[in-house]
This record gives sequence, C-alpha cells and structure tokens, in this order.
Amino acid sequence: MNIAIALFDGAEELDWAGPWEVLAAWRDGWPDDGVDVFTVGWTREPVVCAKGLRVLADHTWDTAPAADVVVWPGGRGTRPMLGDVAVRKQVQDLAARAEIMASVCTGSLVYADAGLLTGRRATTHWGSLDLLAELGAEVDPDARFVDHGDVITAAGVSAGIDMALYLVARLHSRERAAEVRRSIQYDPEPPV
Amino acid sequence: MNIAIALFDGAEELDWAGPWEVLAAWRDGWPDDGVDVFTVGWTREPVVCAKGLRVLADHTWDTAPAADVVVWPGGRGTRPMLGDVAVRKQVQDLAARAEIMASVCTGSLVYADAGLLTGRRATTHWGSLDLLAELGAEVDPDARFVDHGDVITAAGVSAGIDMALYLVARLHSRERAAEVRRSIQYDPEPPV
Repeated sequence: MNIAIALFDGAEELDWAGPWEVLAAWRDGWPDDGVDVFTVGWTREPVVCAKGLRVLADHTWDTAPAADVVVWPGGRGTRPMLGDVAVRKQVQDLAARAEIMASVCTGSLVYADAGLLTGRRATTHWGSLDLLAELGAEVDPDARFVDHGDVITAAGVSAGIDMALYLVARLHSRERAAEVRRSIQYDPEPPV
Repeated sequence: MNIAIALFDGAEELDWAGPWEVLAAWRDGWPDDGVDVFTVGWTREPVVCAKGLRVLADHTWDTAPAADVVVWPGGRGTRPMLGDVAVRKQVQDLAARAEIMASVCTGSLVYADAGLLTGRRATTHWGSLDLLAELGAEVDPDARFVDHGDVITAAGVSAGIDMALYLVARLHSRERAAEVRRSIQYDPEPPV
C-alpha cells in the first residue's frame, strides 16, 4: 500500500503535514501493516510552501512508486493549477491507477478541475465552497470530510488530520486508527 | 515579536508543523500585529525529522534574530539532547532572553534537563510523563498544556496546535486566536 502526498510551491503546510504525521505514524508504528508513505514533488528543488516553509520531497512524479492512495493538499499554490492541462493530466493519470484520491482544503479544486468531482458530493476550505461548486461538484458545506469511494475530500487545513485517521480506519480498521490517534495524542481542546 | 521554532534531526513533524501553521497564519493574516515566525536549526543542512521529512530551516542559532518566544518540539531527537551541555547552554541562553519558552510533546524534557522546569508544573507526551517527573518537574498528566508564565509546555504531538492558539490569545487576544482558528478551519472531529 503506497500512499503519495503531493508537494508543490504554495501548498499549505498543515494540509499535508497533518496527514503526513498520521500516515507516517501508522507506517512506522505498525510495520507489519505494509504501508509506505512518501512525499512527491514536481522537481528535486526545495518546495516553498504557502507560509514559506522549505521542504525536500522524497520523490518526483517521474520516479515515485505507483500510488494506491494520493493525498493532494490545498493552499494558494492550487490556484495556478486550475486550467493547467499538465496538472489535469497528472491528476487523471494518478486517478486511473489509485484506489483513493484524497484531498485536503483547496486540493479538491484541483481534483474538480481535472473532472474527478463532476456531480459528486465534496468539500473544501469554507472560503472556497462557491468555487468548488462552480467547478462542478455538489458541495457539502457541513462535512469535515466526504468519502465518495474513490475520491475523499476534506475541509480546510486541519481537517486533513481527521481525514487521514479516517483513511487508516477505512484501509485497515477503526482499532488501528484509534491506536494511531493515541500515538499522536489527538485529543483536541481548542482553547478559543 | 519574534517567534523561533526549533528544528533538529528527529523532531516530530506535527510537533512543530502545527504551531508553525497557527503562528504563520497569524503572521501573514494580520501583518499589523507585528509578529514574525521562523524556523531555526543547528546547521544549514536539511533537517531530517522523526518520520523522515527533510526540511530546510530559515536560520541557524548563530544567525537567527533574538527570539521573544521559542517553540521547542519533541520527537525521538530530544533523547540525545538530554545531558548534552551544549544544548543545556543553548536553552538557558534562549530562556534568559525570551519572554516565553514553549514546548510541545517531549520538547519539555529538554527544558527540564536544562533546569527550566525544576519544581514547576508541566506536561509532555503521555508516554514520557514519568521521565519528565524524574527530570524534576511537577507533572500534570491531564493538562492539554500548562502555562507557567515564562514556560508553557504542551502534551503530545497534536497538542501543539492548541498550545499555539493559546499563545496567540495570550500574546494578542482571544478574538485574534479565534480568527486564526477559523482561518485554519480548526473544528476537529476525530473520526475514531
């Protein structure tokens, strides 16, 4: 089970770092489950994220192992992807192979632009729900994440943590997801 | 107001990425608040985090602007720091200058080892509460984070998000912290 997390300039940090933490905690804590998780960029250069963090991806799309699950984060870096035929083809090629295409935040706009969400229930960051609808999805404004079988979309930024725990539950078991949750002490208590 | 987030080999990714997202969202969303946030490493080389993510820090400790707030993450990279006199001196020097020394997860072990938590109430990841007590702190096993004035310690991994929102509230206002929370759509719904 190969899980690829897409990195690109302008990707929102927590959009991908939340799922990375959850899924890599699964990978490292339960190696017998046979899960691999890696990041994939477009080039070998450092990726400059939305808030300026610089990260080196594990692979490029040209050399990455085939992905069973893809996680596409959001962030302002998704805007120039909309209408970009190379990105559309990349997403469509990944979707043709993967069991699950997952997104966080405005990553779902990229999936919608590539035709993956036409007429399908989906979500995104609260500030982009209208745009997601314009791109053809049937927007669910109240969902933390939406599982449409081969596509799972999550709400904004921090929703990727919840979605990734759900992925562990769906791909393995609720028990394993609860164990991963405990390992990262995910007992949120927002103070405001 | 300069906020420095420490990076080191073996730092747990979400320990620092959660506070980074919260604090950088504050910095970028409300520039008039005059907040800067940056990462600081020991060298210019890529930092290899606990789950293998490779990150380039913005500064090294030698060249970083003086920090008013320091955030020290946890992760297995904290273990070799315990008893390291160079790390102790680094932490003590930072503490002498900073208004707040904040930690996430086992970052508090490093603070305790440097003498910052002797006889003071503090917390850490649930798996390291005993070790934190052995290092001289008065452990609070139920707190999501503990504010002891000039030192704030958070529980494991994801607790850094809650602690960072609390930092925004303490340093600015509850209203601003609520706005930052909304920007990252932090309405957690753990699915398991």
